[in-house]
Amino acid sequence: MAVPVSAATPAEFRQQLLAAGTLAATAEDGLYARSDAFERVALAFDALVTRRATAMGATRWSFAPIQPRASLERTGYLASFPHLAGSVHVFTGNDRDHAEMLRRINAGEDWSSALSPAPTVLCSACCQPLYPLMSGRLPVGGRLVDVTGWCFRHEPSRDLMRMQAFRMVEYVYVGEAPEAVAFRDEWLGRGRQVLVDLGLGIETVTANDPFFGRRGRLLAQNQQEAELKLELVTSIDAGSAPVAVASSNLHRDHFGQTFGITTSSGEVAHSTCFGWGLDRVVLALFHAHGTEPAGWPADVRTRLWP
Amino acid sequence: MAVPVSAATPAEFRQQLLAAGTLAATAEDGLYARSDAFERVALAFDALVTRRATAMGATRWSFAPIQPRASLERTGYLASFPHLAGSVHVFTGNDRDHAEMLRRINAGEDWSSALSPAPTVLCSACCQPLYPLMSGRLPVGGRLVDVTGWCFRHEPSRDLMRMQAFRMVEYVYVGEAPEAVAFRDEWLGRGRQVLVDLGLGIETVTANDPFFGRRGRLLAQNQQEAELKLELVTSIDAGSAPVAVASSNLHRDHFGQTFGITTSSGEVAHSTCFGWGLDRVVLALFHAHGTEPAGWPADVRTRLWP
Repeated sequence: MAVPVSAATPAEFRQQLLAAGTLAATAEDGLYARSDAFERVALAFDALVTRRATAMGATRWSFAPIQPRASLERTGYLASFPHLAGSVHVFTGNDRDHAEMLRRINAGEDWSSALSPAPTVLCSACCQPLYPLMSGRLPVGGRLVDVTGWCFRHEPSRDLMRMQAFRMVEYVYVGEAPEAVAFRDEWLGRGRQVLVDLGLGIETVTANDPFFGRRGRLLAQNQQEAELKLELVTSIDAGSAPVAVASSNLHRDHFGQTFGITTSSGEVAHSTCFGWGLDRVVLALFHAHGTEPAGWPADVRTRLWP
Repeated sequence: MAVPVSAATPAEFRQQLLAAGTLAATAEDGLYARSDAFERVALAFDALVTRRATAMGATRWSFAPIQPRASLERTGYLASFPHLAGSVHVFTGNDRDHAEMLRRINAGEDWSSALSPAPTVLCSACCQPLYPLMSGRLPVGGRLVDVTGWCFRHEPSRDLMRMQAFRMVEYVYVGEAPEAVAFRDEWLGRGRQVLVDLGLGIETVTANDPFFGRRGRLLAQNQQEAELKLELVTSIDAGSAPVAVASSNLHRDHFGQTFGITTSSGEVAHSTCFGWGLDRVVLALFHAHGTEPAGWPADVRTRLWP
């Protein structure tokens, strides 16, 4: 069904989208301005998966790109992914401190000594700000939430599929352990079908997160063995590794423990999330169907713009 | 036409929106999760003003919440508003540095010494990432661009109208000096009408930006005297100061000089922006018409959802 415009390598694909004006590059790798055409597809896909979430009875929350610093400190993210996180620092000095900061900026020197940590950090996954909001006892059957927001990961790259600032949409279930596993299993199948219906070639694979350092290798191995992370991947070209456009994570009782979330019967809640890489899905659609959405296959257009 | 739900003070208004579930508060003042109801109004207003921009022939760009550090350093923002800016810092150390960072986090100590400045900073106005993209010679008549994105300003407050993370939509004209002034004047009137048509009480006032420090007082005075900044303001209650829901800024040749933008005839380009405070407009609409958009006046609903 899908008619690729070209069997582009990641580098050629990037060049095509920049030449077509679908994205505009900034001075920093992994940071792009998004055109109206790109955003219309992103809005349409977000609306499509949100309709699915609403049909399941999910509540929708949209988050800001930053979250309280204390929340991130409690999640364990900084133990596992310190190299990807972003901390916000601000100037709180006086006129004299300001003059010195400007002198450093104008001299091309590091001016970070003029700054101090703000009570905020960037979000690295769009469900991070959700768990602190769920502290307390859940209703019978748990809660299903549909969240979206901007994420930051410090991994400068010229591969469009690896942006420093990107958006996710996640379905999060918080409640009983067996329901968390069932929700994950169900959405791996349903999510794959959503993407296949849009003309994407999708495989389901067992995966691991990019844990940091020596300890991280063990964590990645454990995660693989327990099949806690599964990804829906697609390929941009035959020569490079497939990339995930969606993934599911079983958290077990990690967030329940951390933020004091309990089931209706008073046990520590389990959670799972099924996350869509919004910008990656949009990129995969442009790759599969070309740079002019008006010319995309009719059935794909009907699903995106019903 | 507008039927305020209550003559709320800012504190009462905040409490009403939190109680209604329109927003959810986080642990940090000025940071909120936005409900589906809130986002539907935000999307509708964004679409409304983008239709107006498209009708004028504007090109639309959406930006990420972060931008290249070097761009912000060049704009002069850090000279004028150091207290509002946000700098992104990241961990680039090894396993030993990581262990020390985690020790500090777990001990509740400042762990910022483990971090170094990233090549990115947060956007403080959504047009900031645009100017570096416009370097070079403009076409005859200049360019009109419609931009949107998330902004960060470090000013923790419990006033909903003063969030730390919020969205703007801006119309930016870059080109000839007289056209820049004419565009500003035209949009002060047209922008006011857009808001009045949505049932908001709006006044146009000469204003100044919140420049930092001793030098800032002089900059604010100059800006007021030259009428470089004009705001469209609305009131939440009679007892507190009106807040801007839109504003226009004449930049003269500031960005043209900084980023080497020239007119078709080779002169340094002038620029102006007309910016909508997207979240503030949405808040003003909830204040004016109540927490249930389904019950808003029919003509307001028709303008938002034509």
